Amino acid sequence: MTVLPDWLQQRAALTPDRLALMAGGERWSFQELDERVTHATHTLKAQGIGEGDRVALLLKNGAPFVTLTHALSRAGAVIVPLNTRLTPAEIQWQLTDVHAGRLLYDEAHTSTAHAAPGVESLLATAVTRINPQSPRFASNLSIHFPLASPHSILYTSGTTGHPKGAVLTFGNHWWSAVGSALNLGLHENDRWLVCLPLFHVGGLAILLRSVIYGITAEVHEAFDPLAVNRAIDEGVTIVSVVSVMLRRMLEARGDQPYPPTLRCVLLGGGPAPRDLLETCAQCGVPVAQTYGLTEAASQVATLAPEDALRKLGSAGKPLFPTELRIERDEGEVGEIVIRGPTLTSGYVDQPEATAQVWRDGWFHTGDLGYLDEEGYLYVLDRRADLIISGGENVYPAEVEAALLAHPAVEETGVVGAPDERWGQVPVAFVKLRAAVSESDLKQFCAERLARYKIPARIQWVESLPRNAAGKLLRRALREWVDSQSAS
Amino acid sequence: MTVLPDWLQQRAALTPDRLALMAGGERWSFQELDERVTHATHTLKAQGIGEGDRVALLLKNGAPFVTLTHALSRAGAVIVPLNTRLTPAEIQWQLTDVHAGRLLYDEAHTSTAHAAPGVESLLATAVTRINPQSPRFASNLSIHFPLASPHSILYTSGTTGHPKGAVLTFGNHWWSAVGSALNLGLHENDRWLVCLPLFHVGGLAILLRSVIYGITAEVHEAFDPLAVNRAIDEGVTIVSVVSVMLRRMLEARGDQPYPPTLRCVLLGGGPAPRDLLETCAQCGVPVAQTYGLTEAASQVATLAPEDALRKLGSAGKPLFPTELRIERDEGEVGEIVIRGPTLTSGYVDQPEATAQVWRDGWFHTGDLGYLDEEGYLYVLDRRADLIISGGENVYPAEVEAALLAHPAVEETGVVGAPDERWGQVPVAFVKLRAAVSESDLKQFCAERLARYKIPARIQWVESLPRNAAGKLLRRALREWVDSQSAS
Repeated sequence: MTVLPDWLQQRAALTPDRLALMAGGERWSFQELDERVTHATHTLKAQGIGEGDRVALLLKNGAPFVTLTHALSRAGAVIVPLNTRLTPAEIQWQLTDVHAGRLLYDEAHTSTAHAAPGVESLLATAVTRINPQSPRFASNLSIHFPLASPHSILYTSGTTGHPKGAVLTFGNHWWSAVGSALNLGLHENDRWLVCLPLFHVGGLAILLRSVIYGITAEVHEAFDPLAVNRAIDEGVTIVSVVSVMLRRMLEARGDQPYPPTLRCVLLGGGPAPRDLLETCAQCGVPVAQTYGLTEAASQVATLAPEDALRKLGSAGKPLFPTELRIERDEGEVGEIVIRGPTLTSGYVDQPEATAQVWRDGWFHTGDLGYLDEEGYLYVLDRRADLIISGGENVYPAEVEAALLAHPAVEETGVVGAPDERWGQVPVAFVKLRAAVSESDLKQFCAERLARYKIPARIQWVESLPRNAAGKLLRRALREWVDSQSAS
Repeated sequence: MTVLPDWLQQRAALTPDRLALMAGGERWSFQELDERVTHATHTLKAQGIGEGDRVALLLKNGAPFVTLTHALSRAGAVIVPLNTRLTPAEIQWQLTDVHAGRLLYDEAHTSTAHAAPGVESLLATAVTRINPQSPRFASNLSIHFPLASPHSILYTSGTTGHPKGAVLTFGNHWWSAVGSALNLGLHENDRWLVCLPLFHVGGLAILLRSVIYGITAEVHEAFDPLAVNRAIDEGVTIVSVVSVMLRRMLEARGDQPYPPTLRCVLLGGGPAPRDLLETCAQCGVPVAQTYGLTEAASQVATLAPEDALRKLGSAGKPLFPTELRIERDEGEVGEIVIRGPTLTSGYVDQPEATAQVWRDGWFHTGDLGYLDEEGYLYVLDRRADLIISGGENVYPAEVEAALLAHPAVEETGVVGAPDERWGQVPVAFVKLRAAVSESDLKQFCAERLARYKIPARIQWVESLPRNAAGKLLRRALREWVDSQSAS
């Protein structure tokens, strides 16, 4: 089993003076980051956090998130980043599901953390507020990362009403970073901008690439198109975004071209609108569309820069260590299945869900796509049912479960509707058993769901389309929604 | 255990049209290389070469070497590249030692191959001459490389009179390639020039990096300073050389500066002369001095480009996956010991030699060095006893063994003497028991040793310096030689 030296420790030993992190007003070299992480590691250990503990993070983007991520690995703990938009009830559910020993949160999330039902009794003294002002501390540790050990647990797709925790090892993240570099290249002056949430794999991966590659991660607290454009003018070479963000960047930019130092706009979060890609091609914005999965530690396939124009709309080819094929029944379109060392071995405490995705040695993504005659991947549906709203995954079954909790709701089906601003928004079809107003039902959801998951519209229906086995036919609902939008 | 798709097959699927190889008049894309390798694989299999066979190569640098290297991996065979300067007797010894099932040789080496004593009876019908003109052939295989499986066996250092075969796995080579990229970066337009012999790890590694990175390998049949300089003008970005080659390149170049596209001259083969490094610094030649070992699948430590001037004479810091420390008795200088996933697990059929280098989980290089206050490695002796002549390793014990085979020789000790052209040449101290002339003794060696191993001078002595246990003190001989050179 391959064992590597602690990535940050090794990086700080190799290139101590290179710029590691830009976040808020901070600019830390790898040595400075390492010293802060060493200090944080001592603090965490003094609080009893150790080998194998699962520690949840409820933190906004920023230097404390970066510091704690590396410190938890150094302490031997497994990182469970929580979506900061979750409600207290959702947080409580995830903490229980993952058997989290601790919840680390920052000042911005104090009230949310404490409002999580049962979180105090669950975590006892473990709810810990992190002071972001860690003094510098000399490193004197010698830590190793076995690639087979779990690094983090990231919650993702659930078709059964609740998300599942995908266990990602150090090896999964390592191979993902190496596979990305073998595709996009690795330049000494690279600076990778993170304006995605760090609790998403697409954000977290950039922090790990930074230490593995020895390049700067520039972390923005939130997405601000003007700030991103300014950062690009000031030396950012790669930025990871979703379509809705890229559109706003271009709108804010106007006619001013991006500098040639910007070498890659890594565009994830589901298939991109064709007009957006065409605009980028016209303006010379170096877009690399990517198809990623939490379970694959981010990128699965990415369009190489050299093919950006020729293969507009494609997610390209798999990363070097990854194999990809289409499992077809008939026609060219089928389920995208993959294998390789970036893939999770499974979900926490969910052997059945794990067995469902891992069949015959291949990971079944549930996503539909096809390969063209040259082997380029085109993704048709991010998942058959998944709604992506402003880059956030919304799982219809989860929204349906919240609606069904209301006594007046008899049946419901949720699908995504096209939306100019967010790409998609959830729309609910509801069959009532008693009277309730749309606003009351939305308010009911707001107590249970993050804001982006709340249905944008509710459509009252007499019945829902179901197949012979009684399974809800979401596809029929989507067709209805699409016909409404088109008309 | 991690398994990757066949590297060349995957690379050809990902970037079929990129230029893979320039060799002689050939320019092959990855797809063309893959097709030729597929054809060669079928040919090899038809000749009975298969899983786990150890197949020796006696080939000059060129496209057939590249094709066969990839084809043998694809056929499941283990590559044993032979030094083309070996005598028939040496070849015969290595073939026996490695239990080679086959010897593949080209036209240039027909007579050597057939002159190897016993090679016909040893290999029976297995001696195969390779036709370099393989037609194109469509690939339709799906091969995988388990990283733990042996890829090649490379012969290296013996202090006991004969070299040892270091087993290098696919994983060793993979991690070496990745570690090198994480240090030197990876640019889409990279072209790496090989003018070192491909049977050396420093040459072979470039062929593997080419397919892993998706960059061009330009292979020269032999080192010609004018041809290398011309290739650099025509787009080579990285070139691997030893000091004696670099000096000749600079002499041939005169005042004309190298183009900025040349981003790295990877300088291996032992500590470089200070004046050479200073000349390069003055002329802006981007030298990256490296410390490598066959057993580590090439680079162990390499000076990052950013430190080239500040740390003149240093071999830099270890590759990212590699750990390095100095095992000291007293003072700052000690034995360089390393660990990490690039390292061989051991030597063919030599458990004692393996146990001697692998102690307490660290690989003991036998090389002396020290780390400065910032952790930069300075290598003092390539090995305590090793002679490096024109980039070739000469093992004193092997030369001594050849001399001792002569009936007139009673005792002998061989050390390196400084030489302006070759860096070092072997010098023998001989105590006779009967009369023999220097030229006769050299002729005797020429029948047993490659030309570069034959002592340049023979010094007759009455006795040899030995320690209390009777062990030859080569250090004392070296001091004597050094004092002679200085005077």
